Amino acid sequence: MKHVKAEIITIGDEILYGHILDTNSQWMCQTLGDLGVKVNYRSTIGDNEEHILKAFDEARRRSDLVFITGGLGPTEDDLTKPCLAKFFDSEMELNEKALEEVTQFFKSRGRELNELNHGQAVLPVKCEMLSNKVGTAPGMLFHENDKVFISLPGVPLEMKYIIENEAIPRIKELFHMPVILHRTIKTIGIGESFLAPKIQDWANNLPDHISLAYLPSLGMVKLRLTAVGPTLESLKTEVNDQIEKLLPLAGKYIFGFDSDTIEEALGKILKERGLTLSAAESCTGGYFSHRITSVPGSSSYFHGGLISYDNSVKVKKLGVPADVIEKYGAVSEEVVKYMAENIRKELSTDIGVSVSGVAGPEGGTDEKPVGTVWICFADGEKTIAKKLSLGFRSRSVNIELSALAVMNLIRLQLGPEY
Amino acid sequence: MKHVKAEIITIGDEILYGHILDTNSQWMCQTLGDLGVKVNYRSTIGDNEEHILKAFDEARRRSDLVFITGGLGPTEDDLTKPCLAKFFDSEMELNEKALEEVTQFFKSRGRELNELNHGQAVLPVKCEMLSNKVGTAPGMLFHENDKVFISLPGVPLEMKYIIENEAIPRIKELFHMPVILHRTIKTIGIGESFLAPKIQDWANNLPDHISLAYLPSLGMVKLRLTAVGPTLESLKTEVNDQIEKLLPLAGKYIFGFDSDTIEEALGKILKERGLTLSAAESCTGGYFSHRITSVPGSSSYFHGGLISYDNSVKVKKLGVPADVIEKYGAVSEEVVKYMAENIRKELSTDIGVSVSGVAGPEGGTDEKPVGTVWICFADGEKTIAKKLSLGFRSRSVNIELSALAVMNLIRLQLGPEY
Repeated sequence: MKHVKAEIITIGDEILYGHILDTNSQWMCQTLGDLGVKVNYRSTIGDNEEHILKAFDEARRRSDLVFITGGLGPTEDDLTKPCLAKFFDSEMELNEKALEEVTQFFKSRGRELNELNHGQAVLPVKCEMLSNKVGTAPGMLFHENDKVFISLPGVPLEMKYIIENEAIPRIKELFHMPVILHRTIKTIGIGESFLAPKIQDWANNLPDHISLAYLPSLGMVKLRLTAVGPTLESLKTEVNDQIEKLLPLAGKYIFGFDSDTIEEALGKILKERGLTLSAAESCTGGYFSHRITSVPGSSSYFHGGLISYDNSVKVKKLGVPADVIEKYGAVSEEVVKYMAENIRKELSTDIGVSVSGVAGPEGGTDEKPVGTVWICFADGEKTIAKKLSLGFRSRSVNIELSALAVMNLIRLQLGPEY
Repeated sequence: MKHVKAEIITIGDEILYGHILDTNSQWMCQTLGDLGVKVNYRSTIGDNEEHILKAFDEARRRSDLVFITGGLGPTEDDLTKPCLAKFFDSEMELNEKALEEVTQFFKSRGRELNELNHGQAVLPVKCEMLSNKVGTAPGMLFHENDKVFISLPGVPLEMKYIIENEAIPRIKELFHMPVILHRTIKTIGIGESFLAPKIQDWANNLPDHISLAYLPSLGMVKLRLTAVGPTLESLKTEVNDQIEKLLPLAGKYIFGFDSDTIEEALGKILKERGLTLSAAESCTGGYFSHRITSVPGSSSYFHGGLISYDNSVKVKKLGVPADVIEKYGAVSEEVVKYMAENIRKELSTDIGVSVSGVAGPEGGTDEKPVGTVWICFADGEKTIAKKLSLGFRSRSVNIELSALAVMNLIRLQLGPEY
């Protein structure tokens, strides 16, 4: 079966200046991918007629389905509509349905149409209007010689509305869709170059219609499987079988699947076991607790924490003996053990964790360079401390990796391994 | 003067599938723009040799300076390096300097090089290696017939390191840059549509070679002045004069300039005054403290905090009377006042702040809907509580805006106004 070859053209100087982060393209790639439409190409160009027409021309030669976002506003620097009219050699005229919709839009907000908004209902004759119920710029669909161009506003809310409600039903009519399935397996605590050899044989034996990609990010590696086939049911079975084969090879590192985050995975384990958690943080300064509490409903297992940034707080509020800090330093196995055990007792939780380190960029010594971090887990039966040597000079990276390491330490203590 | 025409090519199936949000391109556009390099074109292509070579070819015809990110990992699906070698018709060989750096990178982390990592030091002979001290894939610079190609890893930390430390100095040598000055004035606590009328006359009277852009972000509006002229000195004087005129119009809302963050601005004020700070957080779950401690050196003014996520922690550790929580609820003026006053006393700091609210998405009531947040400032002389009605349904947005509001409350109590 022939794949629909799609591409996305984003128009706007504000994106090329870096004033705006383009989140539209990511959403469109995901949404179209779920539909079975493969986006092969994305480009961003400025508000410049020559560049826009050239991009349209290249896109028509390269793709079957072209999405254009942006440049549909009511002001003069919005060039998409006149460029599309020129490109498809089409007259412009007032579209009665578009006028009615934009009038209705303003009316429902207690306002009258002005001249600029009136102009938004003037469309190329050759286009099919796509209704925009959440804004003033309608979408447009052009269908000529088996090529389809769909123009959308750049405002994310409006773009999404038109794609979901207008564009997708039309795409399903115009193209024959393949069946495609994505699954992501998420690992933590192992680098790409160490994970790859462990699963190499498995990866090499994947059938041709299932492909694997490594997606590394800070402290994590995601494995994405993409399968194409006749039915969704058969693909689900096949991909699940492959994941079953992967588990014995990498189970220790797998914390979840698809959209799971490590903090959600951890929350799920704590909830299932009916366990409560507290944290004593030094170098992470609250970031670990922030990640844990970013999960809705985390109050059922996370009771609270203490940020003992100053050593006096470690002594007075966490009962770390001053002479222990004096002897071993605040970044030490001894201190994080006191911190984890005592935050657990102080806040009456099942588990207490702690972290103390040199986040940088200053404060490192020969013995304890920046990136030296001690973390600890205590549950009343055992107290497990671990030293990290992160070796980075970036404060934010050290904070991020330290918090992830604490989450992973809890996960490894509680299981389950996949 | 001729502008350097630049473009960015991002390589990776994971971006076209929408599995990753491309934040690199925005950062590069901003950073290059500050340098006076205009990005005219951005494109994203998959891990496909034919598409990559075609994109290189088009880029060479269109631009003077081409940045390529991604596809430099150690695994087989990373095609950028072989494609560059083919495109520039160059042999590959082991680069001794690159090998030394990647070996050093692993050594500093107490690990040995494996074969995959060894391969990362094999580079096209025609390229100039760009050192990557924060990762294992070196950058590459190709210079042929007045066209410059710079290849960078896709990991944001590594890409930024190489751009800042290696690429920018080389670009300044290879191209003649215009004189351009950017200044950013940063405001908090006022929306764009309320700020604009206050400064409209000033904005209308800016000279032609100084342009203004409003850059709104969550809870903040940045005003960016861009000046182009003959010498940097004259531009600095002119832009400073304009900023002096702006201060009386918007001083109350201005917390800093250029790369200042609100947490840095606040840290500077606390340091200058010799004041110490502590925090009691409920709905923000450690995020306020995280922001404060993300600033290097914050340990000199931030002593610590308590995350009183569970009400029992508010009672036992912060001395909030249980009957007060019972009567007014945990999200109330009464409770945040106890929290701020008592964390200040408990951690013996000059200032104590607190925050308690309904972050959502669940947990709202008719009386206290999601987005209802109380914040408080206490310094021993006065206790000032403030209610926020954020009205958003997003948990992360409510957490972000609550933390910003606490920071702004401290700033407004301490001054200085600009």
